Order: sequence, then structure tokens, then C-alpha cells
Amino acid sequence: MYVVGIDLGGTFFKVGLVDTESGEILRKVEWETRVAEGKEKVVKRMAQAVLEVSNGEDYIGVGIGSPGSIDHDNGIVRFSPNFPDWINFNLGGTLSKLLNKPVFVENDANAFVLGEKWFGAGKGHEHIVALTLGTGVGGGVISHGKLITGKDGIGTELGHVIVEPNGPQCGCGNYGCLEAIASATAIRRMALEGQKKFPESEIFSAEEINAKAVFDAARNGDLLGQMIAERVVNALAIGVANFIHIFNPSIVVIGGGVSRAGNILFAPLREKVRHLVMPSFKDTYTIVQSPLVENAGILGAASIVLQNL
Amino acid sequence: MYVVGIDLGGTFFKVGLVDTESGEILRKVEWETRVAEGKEKVVKRMAQAVLEVSNGEDYIGVGIGSPGSIDHDNGIVRFSPNFPDWINFNLGGTLSKLLNKPVFVENDANAFVLGEKWFGAGKGHEHIVALTLGTGVGGGVISHGKLITGKDGIGTELGHVIVEPNGPQCGCGNYGCLEAIASATAIRRMALEGQKKFPESEIFSAEEINAKAVFDAARNGDLLGQMIAERVVNALAIGVANFIHIFNPSIVVIGGGVSRAGNILFAPLREKVRHLVMPSFKDTYTIVQSPLVENAGILGAASIVLQNL
Repeated sequence: MYVVGIDLGGTFFKVGLVDTESGEILRKVEWETRVAEGKEKVVKRMAQAVLEVSNGEDYIGVGIGSPGSIDHDNGIVRFSPNFPDWINFNLGGTLSKLLNKPVFVENDANAFVLGEKWFGAGKGHEHIVALTLGTGVGGGVISHGKLITGKDGIGTELGHVIVEPNGPQCGCGNYGCLEAIASATAIRRMALEGQKKFPESEIFSAEEINAKAVFDAARNGDLLGQMIAERVVNALAIGVANFIHIFNPSIVVIGGGVSRAGNILFAPLREKVRHLVMPSFKDTYTIVQSPLVENAGILGAASIVLQNL
Repeated sequence: MYVVGIDLGGTFFKVGLVDTESGEILRKVEWETRVAEGKEKVVKRMAQAVLEVSNGEDYIGVGIGSPGSIDHDNGIVRFSPNFPDWINFNLGGTLSKLLNKPVFVENDANAFVLGEKWFGAGKGHEHIVALTLGTGVGGGVISHGKLITGKDGIGTELGHVIVEPNGPQCGCGNYGCLEAIASATAIRRMALEGQKKFPESEIFSAEEINAKAVFDAARNGDLLGQMIAERVVNALAIGVANFIHIFNPSIVVIGGGVSRAGNILFAPLREKVRHLVMPSFKDTYTIVQSPLVENAGILGAASIVLQNL
């Protein structure tokens, strides 16, 4: 059985034909989104991309993971910072008409946790907390087998849980959100803030000053790198312990670019969370790095179809 | 239609016959629990109390709200700090045999949110976050109409979400849990800590040094009272904003002894939460004081039956 997953971003969208049995992506394309050309044209190009990857193969439906606030029952993008003029835009209906197939739309962080449930580390789990550490920090939760979305479909904003009151300001305006410390953007910001005090840190001899450079430096014993890594781990540990106390999940999956730091992030994170959770929660959960890596977007989007049909 | 609710505490248990239409408690008794006499005797006395309040009236079942970790599918008390020897005790089955009626057991904080849904401020709501500010801070969440309990039934420990890292130590061992600042116990502790610096605070001329004395003093412009009240409000505001971002509820209900402070607590809390939530969450929720007051326990327990049948 095949489904199509569309990972919709502000700059590019990726479309893949997914074999639901094996979780393999048989064909995929990555096209420019070209938001400026208007939403109707964007959707038309998405339809063309679907035809290209399906290439005559039958598929049961299309899932779209989109940034922003999504009315998933009706496939509507309420609003999205990435698509300023997509206000209450019937993305699902518009694409469905062009393809004559069912189309489901979900917030991209929710798509991520669905992807983990159907194809990733969350297989067989009914209680999953998922975090994506990228430009921002996204969150998705499956509880008792179902996606938690809240009254208006805007819940599980796990990146905006406050973990360091009076901490750095977040894009949302608050201080000390998880996103303000553990996102790729925040890690880069903390590196630049440290440059005056640590001009010789090896972070600044990296090709690009980013999360990878920070964790690489930390791994080599660079002091600034280690200080930033520790702060990220502490913030994540408080967040993850909170989520464990709230959702009592069997697994916490962490993905996104920052998660590729691997063990230098996950080893101390696991240790700190173990100290923070109450005795009754010990050994009730595992914390894992997302195995889906660069396919997380397409597989997550494809999972929306499986969760709905 | 009638149900019986049992609010089980370490010192007393309350039993009430509840009219499910009106939410009225027709008859109620409060008996000593006498844990030391052994669990079989406690349950026997609970059965006697049920017979006394039902008084020949037919009822469809019994709900028990119990502190501790509850296996609600099987009516089992896994463990409870209040009943040290009740390890994996089949409380529901034991009482059910004596009464020949279905008996359902749930954690008391979960019973509280169910009580709000069926009889209180949460009527007609499918997304409810509830907090009880008492000796500890308990939490219960209804999301998409269903109780969130997690994989092992131990979730929604909202009182142990960290809102002030490096804050006061909590009974659980962590620092800065909501419970370590916003529980009645914590408020009393902060008052006593302030006594050296503010010996003339009117808190210390109250009959009892407790949350009521602190909020009464704050209301009269007492500086220590105001400082403690502000800290409690700040901690609660961070917690409640986090829960709104996580669950996107339509209502947040706050009960327990501390909530009786009323407006001096709720007015600044509403204002601060309004500042903390992201624009998309503005006007999606209300924050209310539990209307059930001293009947919350029995009505919550009775609701467990309604939620299960």
C-alpha cells in the first residue's frame, strides 16, 4: 500500500511516495515552494510533484505536514508565519480536488510524532512525546494512542514551555522558553554571545557557527562549547522531565538538526532526566534520538494519512 | 439516577449519595479511615458507610478517589504514601464484593477534574486542566473528552512541573516544583521563613499560620503577605501558561484550600497568564476557581462512575 507524504516548508517542499509496509520512500522530489507566486500556484505545483513521484502507481491518500496553526479536521491552514497570506486557506480541499484523492493536513510537529509512531522509534508505543530541535523547537504528543491537539488544534507547543524563568528571550516574547535555549537558533546565538569572552574557542574556526560547531567543540573539550552544551542539556532535561511527569510516556523521541549531536547531547540528558523524575517514573520511559533523520518530514506527512484512515 | 462517591483520605473518608441529574449530595457521612486497623477493616467500614448513605436507595455504582498511584483499569491501589501497606491492593474488587455493585477507583486529582467535568466548572468542556492547591498540588487533565493518565496511569503530575529551577526544594527531591511554591504547605513554609525578617507581619497574629493567613494579610497590604502571594502567583502563572501551551484547554479550574483565597489570587494570575500565552492562545481559555468547594471530593469520586459507565 502506498501513501504520499508532503513536507511543506517556507522555502522548499518535499514530496515522497511511501511504501507503508516497509516505510521506504520509493521516489521523492524536492521543489521550491515559491510562496510569492500565490497559494493556488503553490498547490498546483504540489499536485504536479505528487504525480511525478506516484508515476502511475496507485496511492490511498496524501498527507501534508505544514508549519503553522492547522485545522486538521478540515484540512485548513488557519495561519502560518511561513505563508503570510494563507489565512484560513483550505489547503487540503484544494489539493484534493486537483488529485481526486483524500488529503489530510497536520501541523509539522504533530506529523513528526506520527512519523515516529508509524515508521520510527515510536512503533508499538501508545504514549509518545516527541521534540524537534531545529530553527525552533516543535512538540508532538501521542497519548493513549491518539494525537493530543487541544480544543483549537494548537496544543503541545512543547517548545514554549518555560524552563528558565528570567532566561533568554524567546521569539514568542517570553523569557526562558525551551526554544530560547535548545533550538539551533538559540545555540548559535549563545555561541555568538560567547565570542567576546572566548574569542579563541574552536567554535569560531568552524565553517559555520551553528549547533554542529558548538557540539563538535564541546566534544573536543572546548570550554565555551561545553558551557553551551551543558545549558542546552539542562534546559532539555527540565523540559523532558516535565513532559514525563505530565504524559507518563513510554518513549521520548528527540529529532531535528540539533539531535544529530548524538551522544554528547543524549548521554548527559538521560542522566539528568533520571535524577529529575520521581521514583514512580523511573524506568517507565526511554529517551531516544529520532532514527528518521532527513526522511522524518515525508514519513511524518505520510503517517497523517495512516492515522486518519 | 444515583451514584455513590467516596473521597478517601489518610485520616478521614467521606461518602455521599449523589443525584447525577442535579449534582446534589442527598446524604453524606465522614468517618475516620483508621489505616492502622488494616485494609480489610477499612474497606468493611467503607461498605457500611455506603449502606448508611444509600439507605435502601438504588445506585448504579461506587467511585473512589484515592491518593497514590492507581491502576484504574483494575481498581487497584499500586501504592500510596497515605496507606503504607496498601501495595497492589485490589480496593475496587474488595469493596465491589461486599456491596455487589461495580466499583471504580481513580487517583484523587483525576477524580477532581472528572468532578469538574460532570458537576462543576468544566460542564460541557472537552479540554480541561485542573489543579488542586492543597497539602500538595495535584493535577488532572481531560483532553478530547478523555482523562489523560499515561502509560502506567501516573501522568498529569502537574504539581511536579518545575517552574522555578533552583527554587525551594520539593518533597519529591527536586527544586522549584509548582508544589514547592503554590501548595498550602509551601505557603506556610514561606511565611515561617519570613518571620525573622518580618516579625511584625500580621500573618503571625492570625490564629493559625497558613495560606489563609497569608492571603488575608496580603489583602490588608501586609508586605510579607504580598511578597508570598506574588511568588505564588508567579509560579502558578508559569505553570498554567505551560499547561495552556501544552493542552490548549478551554478551561483551567483551580481548587483546593489555597484557591479559596479568591480574587487576590485569581485576578493577578489571570493577568499574568494573559501576558505569558502566545497570541494564538489569547481568549481560547478561561481560568476559574472550582465551584465545588468542600463537595469536590465526593462529587469527583461519583464522577468516576459516570465517566466509566
